[in-house]
Amino acid sequence: MLNYKKYKRFETICFKERTWPNKTITKAPIWCSVDLRDGNQALINPMTIEEKLEMFKLLVELGFKEIEIGFPSASQIEYDFLRALVDNNLIPEEVTVQALTQARPELIKRTFEAFKGVKRAILHMYNSTSVLQRDVVFNMSKDEIKQIAIDGVNLVKEHVAEFPGEIILEYSPESFTGTEVEYALEVCEAVCDAWGATKDKKVIINLPSTVEMDTPNVYADQIEWMCTHFKDRERVIVSVHPHNDRGTCTAAAELALLAGADRLEGTLLGNGERTGNLDILNVAYNMFAQGVNPELNIENIQKIIDVYERCCKIPVPIRHPYAGELVFTAFSGSHQDAINKGMTKYKEKNSQYWEVPYLLIDPRDIGREYEALVRINSQSGKGGIAYVMEEYFGYSMPKPMHKEFADVIQKLSEEVGEIPPQTIMDKFKEEYLENEGIFKLVKCNVSELPDSADSNSDTIVNVGLIYKGKEMKLSGTGNGPISSLIKALLGASLANTTVLGYSEHSLGDGSEANAAAYIHLKRNDNGKDTFGVGVSSNITLASVKAVFSALNRLY
Amino acid sequence: MLNYKKYKRFETICFKERTWPNKTITKAPIWCSVDLRDGNQALINPMTIEEKLEMFKLLVELGFKEIEIGFPSASQIEYDFLRALVDNNLIPEEVTVQALTQARPELIKRTFEAFKGVKRAILHMYNSTSVLQRDVVFNMSKDEIKQIAIDGVNLVKEHVAEFPGEIILEYSPESFTGTEVEYALEVCEAVCDAWGATKDKKVIINLPSTVEMDTPNVYADQIEWMCTHFKDRERVIVSVHPHNDRGTCTAAAELALLAGADRLEGTLLGNGERTGNLDILNVAYNMFAQGVNPELNIENIQKIIDVYERCCKIPVPIRHPYAGELVFTAFSGSHQDAINKGMTKYKEKNSQYWEVPYLLIDPRDIGREYEALVRINSQSGKGGIAYVMEEYFGYSMPKPMHKEFADVIQKLSEEVGEIPPQTIMDKFKEEYLENEGIFKLVKCNVSELPDSADSNSDTIVNVGLIYKGKEMKLSGTGNGPISSLIKALLGASLANTTVLGYSEHSLGDGSEANAAAYIHLKRNDNGKDTFGVGVSSNITLASVKAVFSALNRLY
Repeated sequence: MLNYKKYKRFETICFKERTWPNKTITKAPIWCSVDLRDGNQALINPMTIEEKLEMFKLLVELGFKEIEIGFPSASQIEYDFLRALVDNNLIPEEVTVQALTQARPELIKRTFEAFKGVKRAILHMYNSTSVLQRDVVFNMSKDEIKQIAIDGVNLVKEHVAEFPGEIILEYSPESFTGTEVEYALEVCEAVCDAWGATKDKKVIINLPSTVEMDTPNVYADQIEWMCTHFKDRERVIVSVHPHNDRGTCTAAAELALLAGADRLEGTLLGNGERTGNLDILNVAYNMFAQGVNPELNIENIQKIIDVYERCCKIPVPIRHPYAGELVFTAFSGSHQDAINKGMTKYKEKNSQYWEVPYLLIDPRDIGREYEALVRINSQSGKGGIAYVMEEYFGYSMPKPMHKEFADVIQKLSEEVGEIPPQTIMDKFKEEYLENEGIFKLVKCNVSELPDSADSNSDTIVNVGLIYKGKEMKLSGTGNGPISSLIKALLGASLANTTVLGYSEHSLGDGSEANAAAYIHLKRNDNGKDTFGVGVSSNITLASVKAVFSALNRLY
Repeated sequence: MLNYKKYKRFETICFKERTWPNKTITKAPIWCSVDLRDGNQALINPMTIEEKLEMFKLLVELGFKEIEIGFPSASQIEYDFLRALVDNNLIPEEVTVQALTQARPELIKRTFEAFKGVKRAILHMYNSTSVLQRDVVFNMSKDEIKQIAIDGVNLVKEHVAEFPGEIILEYSPESFTGTEVEYALEVCEAVCDAWGATKDKKVIINLPSTVEMDTPNVYADQIEWMCTHFKDRERVIVSVHPHNDRGTCTAAAELALLAGADRLEGTLLGNGERTGNLDILNVAYNMFAQGVNPELNIENIQKIIDVYERCCKIPVPIRHPYAGELVFTAFSGSHQDAINKGMTKYKEKNSQYWEVPYLLIDPRDIGREYEALVRINSQSGKGGIAYVMEEYFGYSMPKPMHKEFADVIQKLSEEVGEIPPQTIMDKFKEEYLENEGIFKLVKCNVSELPDSADSNSDTIVNVGLIYKGKEMKLSGTGNGPISSLIKALLGASLANTTVLGYSEHSLGDGSEANAAAYIHLKRNDNGKDTFGVGVSSNITLASVKAVFSALNRLY
């Protein structure tokens, strides 16, 4: 039985003077990427410096003008990364780097050391202001918490006086959503006053939904209340930083824009602590889908996904808006039919506007494709085909082989339409298991005579084969059956190849079960490569057969 | 360059008389699961009847009172599934099954055939009413489209007159979000009139966001407009069915509840076409987190995840609200610190309400745990450890082995805390690659003399070993090195085992590269099973070593 009585809603304002529900989004906000800080800190394996550089380069290409690079005073690797950016002159003129710090003297000092040589930077200072954190973490009064922020600003000003570059102040009343708006305003105004903020020396006031605590309309009310209560709205850039605990942070960000926010902090594809940060791409593509220029260079989503998955080591979920594998896929026949009719009409009319049922945008506009689904195959792409081979027939193809075989199936499906699993298996046999060619294995004898259990033991392979119709016997020695066979083929000048990969697994249970072996083989004369597959109850023979399968595909 | 000018916002109402932003959610709606219909139709591999039964059983346990079981007139398997439910008396008294149909005579007739013997059912009829579909798909006027709905209702009434059970009508103006509200209302009223709806004979009017087209406040405006414009609100149950194209459907559902909706259609964990359906669990746990009884039995989220992943064959993303692997995990030191302080204070105060920073709810309330993260290990569970072994060291452990090795690492981490990747590798060596015991391999000679390339060829293994300190020589014959070795061990009464699985892969490129072999071995006397791993540049020897590794773990 769910113990729901243990929870209560955090009562905040209900701002009845709100105007945001009457508005629509008409222009892009200032985007600030926190991929390298809030995103990175939440990774099982945080990025290496090389990965950070790759991510930074991508963010610059995408058109981000403000990039939070880390918390250099708290993390040596983030300090080193910022130094690498500066020392190697990697920060473009139009990009401002941002560093996070708590409002503590030694951390502020260290942040300025990290900034050395930067022409322009945002110093992002925060302290927690929420009712809960004041109580359970800091055990301080409202005035004491406010004083932390004021002292921090004054200290930053001292450093700025001696710093040759330009420093922009960003201040976050952390856990803003759990803070009384009146008190949050009081602290933010004190920060602006201490800094001497003016219309020409704006402070970025960032209002994070550190933990998402309510429906997104409540966040919008909080933001509009703040926007309309600053004593000088012009000296403030209102920034929001939503998290996704309730699964509604994309909405919260959009409604905050309606409510007056100027700036959004978030990450690519929503990486971040717990349920993640705001997914900036989601908001940007949503603008795009309504004809608003998102002012980001996001026309190639696949490239973004590739860098993201490589650097963050997190796969993009298959239903993730815009980026997921299945989001431009229609499985239902009536949907497929309506999409086809819509596409046809769209072309016929040569329409100015995209008007196709069930597809919010034309996937080609962001570098993707719509694939009408033929149940199990061409729709689901290489993932789906690999899945069928594994789930239905037990073959775990090595990952680099997926595309090679998927291309075969997709070509077939373009010709014949819907393809059931058995046809996929039949094609697999035809292509790999029973493919014929100039090499035919007749006999195989492998003798392994290791002197010990050591790995440098010798293997002798004697193989009888028919090559271009002619019977031959070959012999080769190596440190295993595959290398011996490769050497035998090379020795007889029949094939000069390199093994790029090998894997093998049992098909089903028991020591009597068949094994499937996969060889990834490259021809050394022309660089062409392919896979071969062999099946046998004898694991050695399976690998020998796999080599012959590959040879017949290569030669 | 993004071609944003190709898109325009669908202009719908801006309902300035709205009251929904002043409201909060105070009670659970009527939940209707569409997992077996809208969810199932979007799967790469739709559920089998067995899987459907498992899902249905789960939905009943969770407390769903309305369950859409499919589109039986369009799909034989969905017809058969409904018959199986009826014929086996599997529909509890308090549960109403629902079937989807288009408003076409032959489909309505077939739906009633599928209903035969049902005591009470919801017949869910739909036709598309949107501006776009009227134009590009149907090429019909508003009146013609409305007539489809009216004719459908009249036909249903004819069948109802002869049907012994109770039939409740649900009607969806499909693609409601792309329909003018005035026209949607007109069609819905015509349906209610044709049905003869009254306060005591309500019609479920379902207003789908078939494609999510705008920010969620616009959907809320549409719903509140409809709710306030029905000529008799009491004869209507207002239902919503949001999709997630813009990534804001959880918010759309919540704002629709504020706007007056009585009923939510969705799926567990948001499975469904493209970006998915509404995630009912997300909305229900959001209510729970604010102290509202969601009226679903969802205190064991892990069980739900298990059934979902098994039936849908879709993994739950790691940052999915409430259900994701990482959502109750804090990586940041300051977050960990605040959580610890909050937890301590919560216990000290013996507080009535959950008050812990960064954790929206107490994970234990839904059958989960908070795990302070020790970088790479105990937090990330078996997935993380398998990931380290693969990414850092190239070992692709077979899936069933993940748990065995993760248990070893988790035990270690409980003793020593944070564990870097190299320590995981060292432990892997100690456990599998260099583990000693009563079996020691000295020499191994494998002779394979196949008469042909056929898979029934014989293999002779001669192995020299030290068993309990005593040198021995064994010999065995089989259809491969592993089975020959297993037989040799059995023949000498040293070990009576069964091979449960085997896999092998190269470690790096080239025919000279090492291979890693994994054996899953079971003792036949006591049923105990374990994995063994062997590494060698010789694939045969790697598998022999793997057998010895497993033997020393088993005996």
